[in-house]
Amino acid sequence: MDRNVLIDRIVAEVVTRLGDRTASGSQTGTGAPGAGVSGSQAVRPGVSSAGTLSSITPQELAKYIDHTLLKPESPDAAFDKLCEEAARYRFFSVCVNSSRVSYVARKLQGTGVKVCSVVGFPLGSMTARSKAFETREAISDGAAEIDMVINVGKLKSKDYKTVEEDIRAVRRATRANTILKVIIETVFLSQDEKVMACEIAKKAGADFVKTSTGFLGGGATVEDIALMRRVVGKDMGVKASGGIRTQKQALEMIGAGATRIGAGAGVALVTGQQGSGNY
Amino acid sequence: MDRNVLIDRIVAEVVTRLGDRTASGSQTGTGAPGAGVSGSQAVRPGVSSAGTLSSITPQELAKYIDHTLLKPESPDAAFDKLCEEAARYRFFSVCVNSSRVSYVARKLQGTGVKVCSVVGFPLGSMTARSKAFETREAISDGAAEIDMVINVGKLKSKDYKTVEEDIRAVRRATRANTILKVIIETVFLSQDEKVMACEIAKKAGADFVKTSTGFLGGGATVEDIALMRRVVGKDMGVKASGGIRTQKQALEMIGAGATRIGAGAGVALVTGQQGSGNY
Repeated sequence: MDRNVLIDRIVAEVVTRLGDRTASGSQTGTGAPGAGVSGSQAVRPGVSSAGTLSSITPQELAKYIDHTLLKPESPDAAFDKLCEEAARYRFFSVCVNSSRVSYVARKLQGTGVKVCSVVGFPLGSMTARSKAFETREAISDGAAEIDMVINVGKLKSKDYKTVEEDIRAVRRATRANTILKVIIETVFLSQDEKVMACEIAKKAGADFVKTSTGFLGGGATVEDIALMRRVVGKDMGVKASGGIRTQKQALEMIGAGATRIGAGAGVALVTGQQGSGNY
Repeated sequence: MDRNVLIDRIVAEVVTRLGDRTASGSQTGTGAPGAGVSGSQAVRPGVSSAGTLSSITPQELAKYIDHTLLKPESPDAAFDKLCEEAARYRFFSVCVNSSRVSYVARKLQGTGVKVCSVVGFPLGSMTARSKAFETREAISDGAAEIDMVINVGKLKSKDYKTVEEDIRAVRRATRANTILKVIIETVFLSQDEKVMACEIAKKAGADFVKTSTGFLGGGATVEDIALMRRVVGKDMGVKASGGIRTQKQALEMIGAGATRIGAGAGVALVTGQQGSGNY
């Protein structure tokens, strides 16, 4: 409840601030969904820098979405529903914890929907070798994309070498066509730390930077997406995640430079209905 | 804030209910700290079933405490402080994420304070093999105890075989003298599911059952500790964790059958000062 109020306030503030702005070049990201991977299907639809829709269709929006279910208490049936929705709405992927990868990969065979596994999630505080092992397992079980969490405590300690080696260990565990996203968990970071985290992720060979786990407060903001896009440039992906429950929010993120949206409310995002925040 | 209010209400209710009770045999656990391991140092001090102190000293209470720091954003310096406090107050262990094990193990050499690593934490949703790998890494880095999280989604799905195999995979990864605690994450469970989780943990060879990760709401309650103690019997340990910030709470947990206390507020617990809830 508390968190929803917080999210509403953040959304209201973002919307207000966006209203005060003129379109500026620094906000217009140019990456495409699937940036960094060959064969990505969608081109970035026309969305103004203020996040208003110009020509994006629900079908195009669906291609931005990692349909996400990470709640640990989710029963088996919830993953059936997740996969059915992903196939029906042609989402880019489903995003699940590693113990669920093999099941959803089987369910999604032939649908064209990819499987994304989180790794070291959500604290990012396990050993680099354990993250690498979990990555190998997830890929072996059918994951095409890996969303790992940075070692944020080491970033806060300015131990950038360890942060980079942690990402590199996971990068080495991926296959040639695996997309690697690095969750920087913006809620814990200063502006300078956000910049540093993005630079390290880029240097270590990640394909995407991603805002949030959704489990530790905070979440995607238009300002953070714009900042991350500026730092990583046009050749990397930027994934907005955490608290995205409406189509309007999703479009604002894309307008600010996001090339992927992580949300439990994927159906609401493409149908325009109110999302349940089933992250 | 919101959560602290909730915790205070729960505590108040528990205390009220306890006041209405007479001492009943079913509440008096008889395990000792370090249950399941040979060479455990402390015997269980005299604590009434209502959680009031009879003869326990701060030194005895310290032997119940896993001094805990799991916040992912914690910088290096916080682990120095954690270890210094643990050595000074002679806590049973420090409990950290696996990427911090090697550092704290070096810091604690010669102090007699053990190192406890969480595994698959806090969601418990990574693959069993990944949990086993993280366990091996943590032990190799110096952990004497492993606090793993159950696959709660599989428990909710009544897939008890998978839940048991998950624990067994970690049990096989431990050494002969490693203490294995299984976090059942009570906040997600019905009474029947709590009973089932404890029975599975016992069957799979765990040394302890533990209430909570502290990251997903809920936390230790006197009722849950009493229930878990009844289910596992006297030969297993029961660890209370999540939201324990005062000496009074800690003693109530011990009174209900807890043989270990996980808390970030370890210093407050033994000195009787107000804890900061630094979990």
